[in-house]
Amino acid sequence: MSLIIDCHGHYTTAPDALGDYREQQKADLRTNPLFEHSRGSIDISDEQLRDSLEAAQLKLQSERGTDLTIFSPRASWMGHHIGNQSTSLYWTEHCNELIYRITKLYPKNFVGVAQLPQSPGADLSASAAELERCVTEFGFIGCNLNPDPTGGHWTGPRLDDRYWYPIYEKMSELDVPAMIHVSGSCHHCFDTTGSYYLGADTTAFQHLMMAKQLFIDFPDLKFIIPHGGGAVPYHWGRFRGLSDMMKLPPLEEFIRGNIYFDTCVYHQKGIDLLLDVVPIENILFASEMIGAVRGIDSNTGFYFDDTKRYIDASRLGDGEKRLVFEGNARRVFSRLDNRLAEVGLL
Amino acid sequence: MSLIIDCHGHYTTAPDALGDYREQQKADLRTNPLFEHSRGSIDISDEQLRDSLEAAQLKLQSERGTDLTIFSPRASWMGHHIGNQSTSLYWTEHCNELIYRITKLYPKNFVGVAQLPQSPGADLSASAAELERCVTEFGFIGCNLNPDPTGGHWTGPRLDDRYWYPIYEKMSELDVPAMIHVSGSCHHCFDTTGSYYLGADTTAFQHLMMAKQLFIDFPDLKFIIPHGGGAVPYHWGRFRGLSDMMKLPPLEEFIRGNIYFDTCVYHQKGIDLLLDVVPIENILFASEMIGAVRGIDSNTGFYFDDTKRYIDASRLGDGEKRLVFEGNARRVFSRLDNRLAEVGLL
Repeated sequence: MSLIIDCHGHYTTAPDALGDYREQQKADLRTNPLFEHSRGSIDISDEQLRDSLEAAQLKLQSERGTDLTIFSPRASWMGHHIGNQSTSLYWTEHCNELIYRITKLYPKNFVGVAQLPQSPGADLSASAAELERCVTEFGFIGCNLNPDPTGGHWTGPRLDDRYWYPIYEKMSELDVPAMIHVSGSCHHCFDTTGSYYLGADTTAFQHLMMAKQLFIDFPDLKFIIPHGGGAVPYHWGRFRGLSDMMKLPPLEEFIRGNIYFDTCVYHQKGIDLLLDVVPIENILFASEMIGAVRGIDSNTGFYFDDTKRYIDASRLGDGEKRLVFEGNARRVFSRLDNRLAEVGLL
Repeated sequence: MSLIIDCHGHYTTAPDALGDYREQQKADLRTNPLFEHSRGSIDISDEQLRDSLEAAQLKLQSERGTDLTIFSPRASWMGHHIGNQSTSLYWTEHCNELIYRITKLYPKNFVGVAQLPQSPGADLSASAAELERCVTEFGFIGCNLNPDPTGGHWTGPRLDDRYWYPIYEKMSELDVPAMIHVSGSCHHCFDTTGSYYLGADTTAFQHLMMAKQLFIDFPDLKFIIPHGGGAVPYHWGRFRGLSDMMKLPPLEEFIRGNIYFDTCVYHQKGIDLLLDVVPIENILFASEMIGAVRGIDSNTGFYFDDTKRYIDASRLGDGEKRLVFEGNARRVFSRLDNRLAEVGLL
């Protein structure tokens, strides 16, 4: 049996109660930016969860012929720049717990990836603890790591700084990868799902490319750069040339066991470039569904983000397609096979 | 007679005296950030100018078979974030005057494009005045406009804000285009010729795409987005989809007479994507030579930035190649034809 595994899906269709909880946090913060939140509760029934998914992600999975989505809380709502550590911690716990409930309701359709309770200036101990909780208690298989929890200002350290080591240590210990994914922009010059996401993907790649010590200290650390790697595959020659000028290892060698790109590129020619330029072993199928771009391409009559169609129509042979659709995800998310076996998909 | 016009070349090989002048400015600023510089002088002989070009840009023009380079001061040295208005004004005047002297020494090889004396927080009156001086006195045909004179912090207004109108008014009056080009990054997270340049290109495109009033107020304003448009052509589907969700005009229609991309993309497959996705009328040949990436591609044995080879090898027919190599540049830089006629190239 072969599977189509979408490694990048967000719960963007949550019932209003989730947004209401967040609005209350923001209201509390307006009284005091250092407001110490309590955990509180969010009242969402299983039926509401089902309703929010049946006509959306589940319908599209079925229509598009994809099987399993590696599913995480809505990226643009992570909002790590909002409030303080307590804001982010409780918000994140609730968001992750909704994902966990969804993976229990639809175990063959969704497997969880954790949001982390990052907060500007806070260390990463809460994030490491939440990752451990999600992996060991909820069966999650990875996390989304925000390289810029300031929402566009990038005032934190570069990705190879020791600041990040607590989360890298936990990722290594649990053997789970991270998708590097910013959240909503609070910077007036950056637009969330366009320039900010794509710029952040490119920035993250360059941090990792230029890291001197990181992959010596953590040789098995695995990162997925979303949105087709930002600008990187289009500028593969530039990055090969820059890497060469800096006397770094060749890009193909550098990324081999550590850096992966997803296929959230919303037109055939972009996908074709990605598949032509980046080694197939480093590409994971993904649609970001339901995500940034929700419309239908008037040129094709199909959804922009129905990326399976582009892979299907590409020049890849069957074996290569199987790697992109399934094999690479099962290798990068090392805990996925156990999960697939548990739910009868393997 | 047909011409190969490279619309993006920088004077990156200036004699040491230029760098020495800049170091003195920085030394003055260390005594007082508000230091009011005097213009001073830079002693560089015509022979030194020739020596700095003969074995570099001129040699490569000849080897690669390109004719004319639209030439501007070194982009990464514009350094608008350094010092104050007086710092930027005198530095810019000297840089532009060197370009002017070069265009007099080699009138068939170089035509000038102006650096602008932008400075964070300063209005654009000095920039408008310098553009006028360069166009009317020196025969320059355009300018480089820095969308982020803060060097990575992006604390200034978006490109469609009325803050920028004095330079847009002057560009419209003189009928000259601007290449939108950031300078060196002083932000620890952004790497100048990689993530910063490419992120800025993408950011600038999105500002312009989302501008409500700008192209109503200035219908003939022309911008060139360098480095192949950052991430935009690779993510053409995403931007088409985002534009559609925002109920903006179709991208092809939006860019038609106002937005152009250069061909500074340093591998065949990237160039092929650009030529496949963006209307040919909106693409201008460029190499950035001598620029960000100076090495030889071990896969091809040729310089990464020898972009003429990629265009030559592309699927374009002869008529389309002529547009990219010559016709589009002559249309976008409306003052170019007069200049070509003056120097006997037309």
